[in-house]
This record gives sequence, C-alpha cells and structure tokens, in this order.
Amino acid sequence: MAYDGAIQRLIDAFASLPGIGPKGAQRIAFYMLSASEEEAQRLADAVLDAKHNIRFCEICGNVCETSPCTICSDPRRDRSMICVVEEPKDVMSIERTREYRGLYHVLGGTINPMANIGPNDLSIPKLLDRLKDGSVKEVIVALNPNIEGEATTTYLSRLLTPLELKVTRLASGLPVGGDLEYADEITLSRALAGRRDV
Amino acid sequence: MAYDGAIQRLIDAFASLPGIGPKGAQRIAFYMLSASEEEAQRLADAVLDAKHNIRFCEICGNVCETSPCTICSDPRRDRSMICVVEEPKDVMSIERTREYRGLYHVLGGTINPMANIGPNDLSIPKLLDRLKDGSVKEVIVALNPNIEGEATTTYLSRLLTPLELKVTRLASGLPVGGDLEYADEITLSRALAGRRDV
Repeated sequence: MAYDGAIQRLIDAFASLPGIGPKGAQRIAFYMLSASEEEAQRLADAVLDAKHNIRFCEICGNVCETSPCTICSDPRRDRSMICVVEEPKDVMSIERTREYRGLYHVLGGTINPMANIGPNDLSIPKLLDRLKDGSVKEVIVALNPNIEGEATTTYLSRLLTPLELKVTRLASGLPVGGDLEYADEITLSRALAGRRDV
Repeated sequence: MAYDGAIQRLIDAFASLPGIGPKGAQRIAFYMLSASEEEAQRLADAVLDAKHNIRFCEICGNVCETSPCTICSDPRRDRSMICVVEEPKDVMSIERTREYRGLYHVLGGTINPMANIGPNDLSIPKLLDRLKDGSVKEVIVALNPNIEGEATTTYLSRLLTPLELKVTRLASGLPVGGDLEYADEITLSRALAGRRDV
C-alpha cells in the first residue's frame, strides 16, 4: 500500500537523505504539504542554489561560494599554520571554537585501503605543494580519532616531519563534562599518557 | 560563525523541517553537495510537485492527486463503513493492516479547547452530511488514544449514537510484542477491562 504518486515521490525523496527513516520522511512530507507555498519554494531553491553556487576552494578544498574561500583570502589569518581536516564540516567545527586563526587544508577523506582510497586520492599532493615555499611553520593534523584517521595521521606525520615543520595533532583524552566511569579504556589510557601538570 | 550564504541557507532550510536538528541538517546539506545534480533536482521537483498536485479529497478529506480520492472512488470498498481518523497519514497506517475495506473520513485534527479548535473547525459537519442518506451502518472512531483523541471520540459517539448507527472505537490494550512489566497503568487497566475469552 503506497500513497498517491506525488506524495510517495516526496516521501521517497526525503527518505533517501541520510539520517531520515521512512517514518521521519512521511512526517516531513506531510509537514511540507501543510506548509506554505513559499516555504516549499524556499527549500527547493535552497537545494538547487547550493548545487549551482557551491564550489570547492582551489587552495584549501573547503566548500565556498567564491574560490579562494573566505578563510584563504582573509588577510588577518595566520599563514604560518595549516590545520589538516577530513571534511569541510570539520573546518566549521574548529572555527566554532574561535581559538584557531590559521589556515585549513581539507583532505576530502582518509586513507582507507578497504575502500581503495590511497594518499593520491586525497588532496595530499596539494598539501605538499602548499608547504613548498617554507612559509608554513606548523601543520596541525586534526583528523577523527578512528582507525582511518589514525592511519592517515601517521602517514602524514612521516611525510611531513622531514620537511623541518612542526607537525602536531589534537589531544586525545576525556571529553569535558565526561565521566571516568563511562570512558572507554583506550580514551582513558590516552588521557593518562597525555597527563599534564596542574 | 556560519557557512557561506548558499550552504547556510540549505542547512537552515533542512533544519526548519520537523525531526531534523542542526547537526542532522548539516549532514544532509553536505550530502546534497556531494550528491549528483539529478538527485538535487529530484528532491526540489518532488517538493514543488507535491505542493502543486496534491489536494484534499472533497468527500473524505484524505490527500490525493485526484478528487475524489482513490479510496472513495474504488467500487470494491465497503460503503457501509466509515473509519474516522485524525490525519491523512492515519489512513495509510490503517490501510497497511489490509484488514479494513470500508471508507474513511479525515477530521483534520481533534477537538482541543486549549488550541481553540472546536467541532466546527474539523470536518465533523461534513461527516454528518455523509451519514444522512442512511447507507452507512457503522462508524469506527480511530483517533489517537490521548486526551484530545478521547475527548473527540466521546463527542463523536454522543453525536452519532442517536443516528441509529453502530459507533465503535479501536481496542485499547497491550501492544503485540509488548511487556506487562513496562506497560503503564492506564494501558494495563484498559487491557484488563477489555479482556476476552481465549
């Protein structure tokens, strides 16, 4: 039993998005039907607009409307630091801390032999290009702390250390507001190994 | 800190939908950016298409592309029964059981004095019109078992009983696969009151 054509197509379109199941898609579809014409138009426009106007920054690989992106072209940013992240959304996560004023480099993924993704499928050659002129003094590798992220971090650190650069990575440890009782062993041993003077 | 214009507009558009939070909206937006042009077009088309083509059935109030809807115009349906539901999606829930072959009537809400919704804001007068010719023998009130649903069920049963109709409601009790231990007291007392011979 399915809905009439257009409703079912709408439900299917929403259900194909990540994180939306069939019930959620149905709920959104009925919400759209009762929403105003303008709201429907706004959603449709936003989707097409983003597809047509968003590109990747030719320098760092971040998503942007103008290339180079607003970060790469901002003269107030510290050009001696590059923070290497996996995805464009990681740039925004780090920007939200308001602690980092350097540049970024988006790899577009991590090294993953199972998925047949090697260093040359990522923007690692482009990163090496950016480091050539010697103006960058520190590279912060800020990849996700999972197996692929660790492997890529190790690969990058081996690749970059000979270049007389400071190569750092994000600290691992207990999340703020976390609980010793619920921390897994690996996180806890990382937190121990990285202990600091009070 | 926000994204460049078009990305932020896309995230905001998704975040305004029910059941999608800011993180989910960001995830969907980045998914759309990496999706194919066709997929983006399909989503935009589905939204506008549904807005333009979907109407409400003039008889039962269900959503449909043709009015009367496919159920009201199906000669194989049993025209002596009307199942009263709150929303169009409830029609689909009951259709999925494949047990009911009668007609429907969508109220479009429930009586809710707090939200200033009275009987005349719902399609109750239309329901009475449909019952006038005496061809309907049973009305099944299938509203959600919450306060507003109960109040509306009571209101409808008082309104319809004088019409020499059988007025029934869905059984309350333990959900199949449920657990006595986790059933709330009201559900359990309904299940007891409605106990049946084995």
